[in-house]
Amino acid sequence: MSEENPVHDMTADECWELVRTQEFGRLAFHLADQVHITPINYAVDGETLLFRTAEGSKLLAVVMNPDIAFEIDSYDEDEAWSVIIRGTARHLDEFEEHRAENVPLRPWVPTLKYDVVEITPREISGRRFDLNRPWLHITPES
Amino acid sequence: MSEENPVHDMTADECWELVRTQEFGRLAFHLADQVHITPINYAVDGETLLFRTAEGSKLLAVVMNPDIAFEIDSYDEDEAWSVIIRGTARHLDEFEEHRAENVPLRPWVPTLKYDVVEITPREISGRRFDLNRPWLHITPES
Repeated sequence: MSEENPVHDMTADECWELVRTQEFGRLAFHLADQVHITPINYAVDGETLLFRTAEGSKLLAVVMNPDIAFEIDSYDEDEAWSVIIRGTARHLDEFEEHRAENVPLRPWVPTLKYDVVEITPREISGRRFDLNRPWLHITPES
Repeated sequence: MSEENPVHDMTADECWELVRTQEFGRLAFHLADQVHITPINYAVDGETLLFRTAEGSKLLAVVMNPDIAFEIDSYDEDEAWSVIIRGTARHLDEFEEHRAENVPLRPWVPTLKYDVVEITPREISGRRFDLNRPWLHITPES
């Protein structure tokens, strides 16, 4: 096993590059005094993220407490990475929700009515992990 | 486009089956009055999940406020699914942490010292989404 540190911090630029290449992440938010998590489709709009929701609980949650965290990740046999955003969420009103039309925010699942929520990052951080998963390479013959 | 509802709720049994087939998820937790999210490796032990952490902030967080949410998901071109657990987390003491030796809880990244945290689900829910992502099938020729 290598003595090198297998965990590598990313720069903010590297993190944003990954955020721009993805369209699926997970949002963590407060609902009353509990923490919730939900998968979302998103698109980057300038230095914010936009997503659509038809679910009242998510909207109510971010109106009541805008503090959120957001994560994207990916892994294969050799490497995993994860980017985490911490910041605030805000329900866009009717005069702002057109912003969702100008970015590739394509809903995976069609529903009748969507509201648009904006995530404004305050911190962005990311790490790459060199993976050590020897069991993946264990075969009955080895 | 089909008129059928593209979102399908899973049974608790279906959710547990997926939780048992995966080893990588995301944990949302409170740290002071903020919500945080982090990727974790986990293994199922009975009706609980175990994960290891070398990070003080995660341990401190679940000791201060055990309310957590946890998510796993997967998607391909045709379907996405997501399973969400809500429950509590607890730092296992030295007399219990041997439980991590009896399950396939294999750290992806070697570090010197790990603590073991147990997640006890209170609710488990999951949904499958029939995807409608026509842009994936758009080619320059079409």
